[in-house]
Amino acid sequence: MPVVQPAELWQETGRWSKMGPEMLRMKDRHDRDFCLGPTHEEVITDLFRRDIHSYRQLPCNFYQIQTKFRDEIRPRFGVMRAREFTMKDGYSFHADQACFDATYQEMYDCYERILRRMALDFRAVEADTGNIGGANSHEFHVLADSGEDLIAYATRGDYAANLEKAAAAPPADRPEPAETLEKVATPNQTSIEDVAAYLKVPETRCLKTLIVQGAPEAEAQDGQRTHEDTRPQLVALVLRGDHELNEIKAQKLAGVANPLRFADEDDIQAATGCMPGSIGPVGLEIPTYVDRDAAAVADFVCGANEEGIHYRGANWVRDQPLAEADVVDLRNVVPGDAAPDGSGELQFLRGIEVGHIFQLGTVYSEPMQAKVLDQNGRSVTPIMGCYGMGVTRLVAAIIEQNHDEVGIIWPEPVAPYLVHVVALNYGKSDAVREAADRLYDVLKERNLEVLLDDRDERPGVKFADADLIGIPHRITIGDRGLKEGRLEYLIRGAAQAEKLPLDEIVSRLAG
Amino acid sequence: MPVVQPAELWQETGRWSKMGPEMLRMKDRHDRDFCLGPTHEEVITDLFRRDIHSYRQLPCNFYQIQTKFRDEIRPRFGVMRAREFTMKDGYSFHADQACFDATYQEMYDCYERILRRMALDFRAVEADTGNIGGANSHEFHVLADSGEDLIAYATRGDYAANLEKAAAAPPADRPEPAETLEKVATPNQTSIEDVAAYLKVPETRCLKTLIVQGAPEAEAQDGQRTHEDTRPQLVALVLRGDHELNEIKAQKLAGVANPLRFADEDDIQAATGCMPGSIGPVGLEIPTYVDRDAAAVADFVCGANEEGIHYRGANWVRDQPLAEADVVDLRNVVPGDAAPDGSGELQFLRGIEVGHIFQLGTVYSEPMQAKVLDQNGRSVTPIMGCYGMGVTRLVAAIIEQNHDEVGIIWPEPVAPYLVHVVALNYGKSDAVREAADRLYDVLKERNLEVLLDDRDERPGVKFADADLIGIPHRITIGDRGLKEGRLEYLIRGAAQAEKLPLDEIVSRLAG
Repeated sequence: MPVVQPAELWQETGRWSKMGPEMLRMKDRHDRDFCLGPTHEEVITDLFRRDIHSYRQLPCNFYQIQTKFRDEIRPRFGVMRAREFTMKDGYSFHADQACFDATYQEMYDCYERILRRMALDFRAVEADTGNIGGANSHEFHVLADSGEDLIAYATRGDYAANLEKAAAAPPADRPEPAETLEKVATPNQTSIEDVAAYLKVPETRCLKTLIVQGAPEAEAQDGQRTHEDTRPQLVALVLRGDHELNEIKAQKLAGVANPLRFADEDDIQAATGCMPGSIGPVGLEIPTYVDRDAAAVADFVCGANEEGIHYRGANWVRDQPLAEADVVDLRNVVPGDAAPDGSGELQFLRGIEVGHIFQLGTVYSEPMQAKVLDQNGRSVTPIMGCYGMGVTRLVAAIIEQNHDEVGIIWPEPVAPYLVHVVALNYGKSDAVREAADRLYDVLKERNLEVLLDDRDERPGVKFADADLIGIPHRITIGDRGLKEGRLEYLIRGAAQAEKLPLDEIVSRLAG
Repeated sequence: MPVVQPAELWQETGRWSKMGPEMLRMKDRHDRDFCLGPTHEEVITDLFRRDIHSYRQLPCNFYQIQTKFRDEIRPRFGVMRAREFTMKDGYSFHADQACFDATYQEMYDCYERILRRMALDFRAVEADTGNIGGANSHEFHVLADSGEDLIAYATRGDYAANLEKAAAAPPADRPEPAETLEKVATPNQTSIEDVAAYLKVPETRCLKTLIVQGAPEAEAQDGQRTHEDTRPQLVALVLRGDHELNEIKAQKLAGVANPLRFADEDDIQAATGCMPGSIGPVGLEIPTYVDRDAAAVADFVCGANEEGIHYRGANWVRDQPLAEADVVDLRNVVPGDAAPDGSGELQFLRGIEVGHIFQLGTVYSEPMQAKVLDQNGRSVTPIMGCYGMGVTRLVAAIIEQNHDEVGIIWPEPVAPYLVHVVALNYGKSDAVREAADRLYDVLKERNLEVLLDDRDERPGVKFADADLIGIPHRITIGDRGLKEGRLEYLIRGAAQAEKLPLDEIVSRLAG
């Protein structure tokens, strides 16, 4: 599939406008629009609809290993998050859901087998589908303290999800109101921490209210919008004081702009008559979403929508109506939250995302009008899946999990070579050169990949390079070892080398 | 190496401005200039200068197989000339010329071996270095009537060159003048063909004069150029009437604009006082280059620089001065020309360029200040070579040379599979399915790559697809063959199939 993709395909699915600046756009010499492929759903769906027309040709599965480009605002961590990288991406097409489900499970199992063969410590987790779309997806994370992603997992069960997606069990029912609503002065107390300390209530009983932009309304038809009209529609998001907003969850709400945009102070003051810091849901006259846990608090503290004034003893329903549809999951889970499937509590791990598989449904085949005829001659829209594995990042993740202070320790299945022959004094000693060349040939004949260090470097330099490169098995050939009939054999990462006859080393390697 | 390359590197070598619109340029999200890599000399020289600092690290050789992009104005012939393609490109660095020469010869030999292993009919030829630069280069052409390139080769020797570069032996010395110079009216006779017929002289004794733009002079410092000044400097190119201009040779001349641009009629009339069609070198007052063969003609016909008037009996030196430095090779060779090395005459073949290797010298290392310290601690500029093979185009060229009217005939070393097992009635016959599956396993165990056609298609469809795909060996498994104990074995391209016991087919394939 091409690296350079025509805009027309992306316009068909609407992603030409939806994709952010991560998609690098350009014009060719004929002034036509193209982009560098960040992913290939549109291309494969176009190829599919040109050639595949019957259910008898399904299921089918296409894949490639190819260069992708995403114009990251901040490339970092070497190849871990580079703008240009190599990816294995696959796409499957199915006439019915049962067929898709079976393939998705096969892919899931296959990704697990691949990562196990690479000897990686990993977790498969539920994930947000982001700008690829579709109903559900799973990410495969290599566990590492340096990982950019937080994974929440259940301590007594299988539940695991990216923090972006992770949900806790719903909270217990809200207690009945016990206090009366009163206004209290909270001069210069604007953060939850300050207000809680000032009023001597726990943060769990303070509610915080964030103001974001609403989903854009359709353009006015008459073009006569006044300045007032051009202020964005605002929406309030209410969370318990000790909880953090999950932006991914928020921007998926129908009334909220996607991507999420926090409101300007000016717009907030125009809409609420108050500055951020004293805003609260009671009496607030803009659309409001309330996190499930915030909706379960009674007798709470919140801003009174007057500068320097808060409410205490506030209660939902009694003091402010609360529609069931506006109570949603808006927050990041925290360690100790109850797992959503009841399997213990949630704890966190850090991970490096190396794979991501998606249940796309018909989000590409439908708008691009890929159709096949089914058994009964009816035109049906195929169900799709896509399956990505980051080849470049996998290399970095493997090294992250397999190294020590002097270098890499390659797992055998992905090592660039199996054996490293370090020939000392190769340039000057005939005995060393002959033995090293012979060993090289013997190993090659047995289909064992071997790297021979025949450079004119000091032993210390050669050993340090061997440690750094991290090939699993190292055999040192020097004049002394040859005389003794025993050569030094070291498994990379092992505490200490052994001295063994060459034949024994070779038969161990071939065994 | 990256597909997306920063402009800064190309600015260092001056190619950011020299490369034409084939190089696709773009800006990233930070508004910085980038291009899609049409080639990677700048990138590799940058990598080299960051890491390699001593002659002891030389020679070294780097290669990749990667996507290249060239924004061809007219992509055509499928993958033969596509904008995006896969290329093998290598780059070598050397401390001295002798070391480079040895490697260049090794690369040349290696390219020949690769093409021979692919069973291709090819020629290695001298070539123009184009916008890669350097002193000399060789192209590797797969011979094919559909090839875009013309190759001139010597009938009794090794000389072979791309028409762009090919030279004939120099002509014999010019005869002494025998005729006197006279003007003749040639009303409405403007082409060489017309003039020669009208004056009853052979085209070989008519000279044609083409007017092109000269190399741009340095910009005037005071910015006060008048309209007169902005007319381009013009240059005349004189050829024998029966010869054609070689534009590549012309644009390499110091006085000629590169790329070559023919002059407008307006500018020609302003410079010569005459329209094209009656222009000639005698009395012409603009800089003039004369092709070697045109300089060897005596008593010639040429335009007299007056509308509808030609000279006849014109002679160099006597009628028009001729500086030795202005006599150059300007023309395309023609079949029958004497080979430049005296080895018979030149004939033509058509070829598909699949490889090109270059003697770069220091055209990249010098401007990019790649330096190494030599044995004596002196800083020297490494000598470079680069070596490209078009992987995508090779596939097309292989098919071009290896096909018949029903499909591809893959040479074994590059066949996607070695054996095609066509199982007839696989879905319904247990005997066929068991035999086909067993054969598949047996061949795989012997490391023979095998494709099994287990589809529910009619035999005719399966055979036609097998012919089209062109896998070298085809084994047909059907109920009748199984009963007879002999299966149909067909070598793709052979006139006729054999019926053999399965064991014999397998041992032939494994042998």
